[in-house]
Amino acid sequence: MTRIEDLDTPAVVVLLDRLEDNITRVQGMISSHGLLNRPHIKTHKIPAIGKLQMKAGAIGLTCQKLGEAEVFIDAGVCDDLFLTYNIIGKRKTDRLMELAARIKRLAVVADNETVLRGLSEAGQRHGRDVQLLIECDTGFGRNGVQSPEAALELARLAVKLPRIAFEGLMVFPNTAPNTFEFFTRAREIFGKAGIPLPVLSGGGTPALNKLGDYPMMTEHRAGTYVYNDVMMVQSGVATWDNCAMHVRATVVSCPTANRAVIDSGSKVLTSDHYYVEHYGRLVEYPGAFIANLSEEHAVLDFSQCKTRPKVGEVVSVIPNHCCSVSNMNDEVHGVRNGVVEVVWPVAARGKVR
Amino acid sequence: MTRIEDLDTPAVVVLLDRLEDNITRVQGMISSHGLLNRPHIKTHKIPAIGKLQMKAGAIGLTCQKLGEAEVFIDAGVCDDLFLTYNIIGKRKTDRLMELAARIKRLAVVADNETVLRGLSEAGQRHGRDVQLLIECDTGFGRNGVQSPEAALELARLAVKLPRIAFEGLMVFPNTAPNTFEFFTRAREIFGKAGIPLPVLSGGGTPALNKLGDYPMMTEHRAGTYVYNDVMMVQSGVATWDNCAMHVRATVVSCPTANRAVIDSGSKVLTSDHYYVEHYGRLVEYPGAFIANLSEEHAVLDFSQCKTRPKVGEVVSVIPNHCCSVSNMNDEVHGVRNGVVEVVWPVAARGKVR
Repeated sequence: MTRIEDLDTPAVVVLLDRLEDNITRVQGMISSHGLLNRPHIKTHKIPAIGKLQMKAGAIGLTCQKLGEAEVFIDAGVCDDLFLTYNIIGKRKTDRLMELAARIKRLAVVADNETVLRGLSEAGQRHGRDVQLLIECDTGFGRNGVQSPEAALELARLAVKLPRIAFEGLMVFPNTAPNTFEFFTRAREIFGKAGIPLPVLSGGGTPALNKLGDYPMMTEHRAGTYVYNDVMMVQSGVATWDNCAMHVRATVVSCPTANRAVIDSGSKVLTSDHYYVEHYGRLVEYPGAFIANLSEEHAVLDFSQCKTRPKVGEVVSVIPNHCCSVSNMNDEVHGVRNGVVEVVWPVAARGKVR
Repeated sequence: MTRIEDLDTPAVVVLLDRLEDNITRVQGMISSHGLLNRPHIKTHKIPAIGKLQMKAGAIGLTCQKLGEAEVFIDAGVCDDLFLTYNIIGKRKTDRLMELAARIKRLAVVADNETVLRGLSEAGQRHGRDVQLLIECDTGFGRNGVQSPEAALELARLAVKLPRIAFEGLMVFPNTAPNTFEFFTRAREIFGKAGIPLPVLSGGGTPALNKLGDYPMMTEHRAGTYVYNDVMMVQSGVATWDNCAMHVRATVVSCPTANRAVIDSGSKVLTSDHYYVEHYGRLVEYPGAFIANLSEEHAVLDFSQCKTRPKVGEVVSVIPNHCCSVSNMNDEVHGVRNGVVEVVWPVAARGKVR
């Protein structure tokens, strides 16, 4: 029996009670709004956790890259996957069609004509329809058509092209400023054009508190909720007690009265900042903060803290962005009541293609 | 024969002519100052590249974590390694001593009494001396004793403790503000105390242009020079043509006139900023910049650029920080004259313990 204290550091641990509670609670939130739940696996990248999400009531899962979808389909996690990424080029569209042949439904997005035509050609090569949603940019400023009218124009092409089965619209995240107006207008003009929109897919963990603001949506894709992190607590959608991922780290140096250094740097904790000021929260010393990261060191500032750790002491860090932590670490340790119950390889780690 | 254009994206490529030139040129710079060259493997994490560095004249290599040292010793890369990290706890010090038994010299650092005593105990358990340097903080604000006097005090303990073979002082980076004064004073007071300092080990790629400013040093540890990146160009120690690591990425979306999105996000390019403004340099469009990163998307701003790419076009990105790119990607493609000559697994990737 391995106890949490026995783990050599750095070690990424997942508190199983919190993980299970997050899965159940968020399934309930999404279901209570009459939405289908389609969790994004980017946060955990672990088939066993995907199975827990399916068992709790998810309709299917979301992946961001083909390589992730391959891992999850190989593991038999679900037969309904949504790949929310523009898939481009013969090599990748062939992989897509090979995956589509293995499960009941594999949907994919497009936000431009080049990608859409490539998918149609792949569908024709493989003699199989491509389930397609159009990605919409409602103010986030990443991928997506820029207006409901542009969505309709691309949809008109989609319904004309061979082997494209047009299903609806997709956005990330719901909380982008124009989502309500964009989707309201899109439903109007698609209705007038006689093009049905059976699927309207929204996403994002911070949107979980605002699902009622988007009554037109049919499904929701959240990822980070499964672990939560500093960003999710700052966005108001989780508490520190909902944070299931802790990084266990050892204090290796206390060079000055107010400075300590732990053995987990950006290679474990991620240098992702986004809207967070520092680099993670210290569970045992909430008054301290991580002022700086190198690859293998985190420099902790204890100037605002009454107590201080000693060299050799092990501390727990809630990372800024748990998804990136998953992507850098080969395994996580599932812990319950202080005992390591399972070691999960992060099977879809590093699947960038 | 695979050509660079045949690689599916994202793909990390290493331009072999530049890699070899970096290795040879920097070996020459360090040798010409009468210093020994001890490259840090954290940048490439690839034994074959370590062998190139040894062949070019390196005295040995530097690792940051035990797991990296294990990979390089398993691969028989060299018989002289310096582990520039406080190794703490019985599990890790046992691994250290097992490694030390396999090569001619494995040196390690300490910056505090707890670590030093732990190393002495490990030496006694294994019946073998621990080659030890004291890490000094000359203004970088990470690990290290805070003054020459503190270094001397710790050294006095080191020479008294069983199984510690005290060798000298170590700093990272040389370019920290007080290095010259710290090391000058340390040599004086160690001399008076009769404690020899056979090894004075400095480090950092940006210090390569200033090696003459630290005439007391006996060896130099640089890592990033092997590939170079945006940080190194901005620090003035490399040109864009010295940058051997390129990330090949495909344009998957051009949602607006000035915005393009590529299929390489923080999972490939790293969110590391340090003193760099954006997230990498576009080789083919130097007027564009990477304004934002998500895990799988980089959002490019072309507002300052006369030409624009098309969806499906492949571009090359010089990352902000090549070491972090190595740590996230399972393999790199060595390319010469447009042909993939070798695919190297990043064997020491993710070795956080």
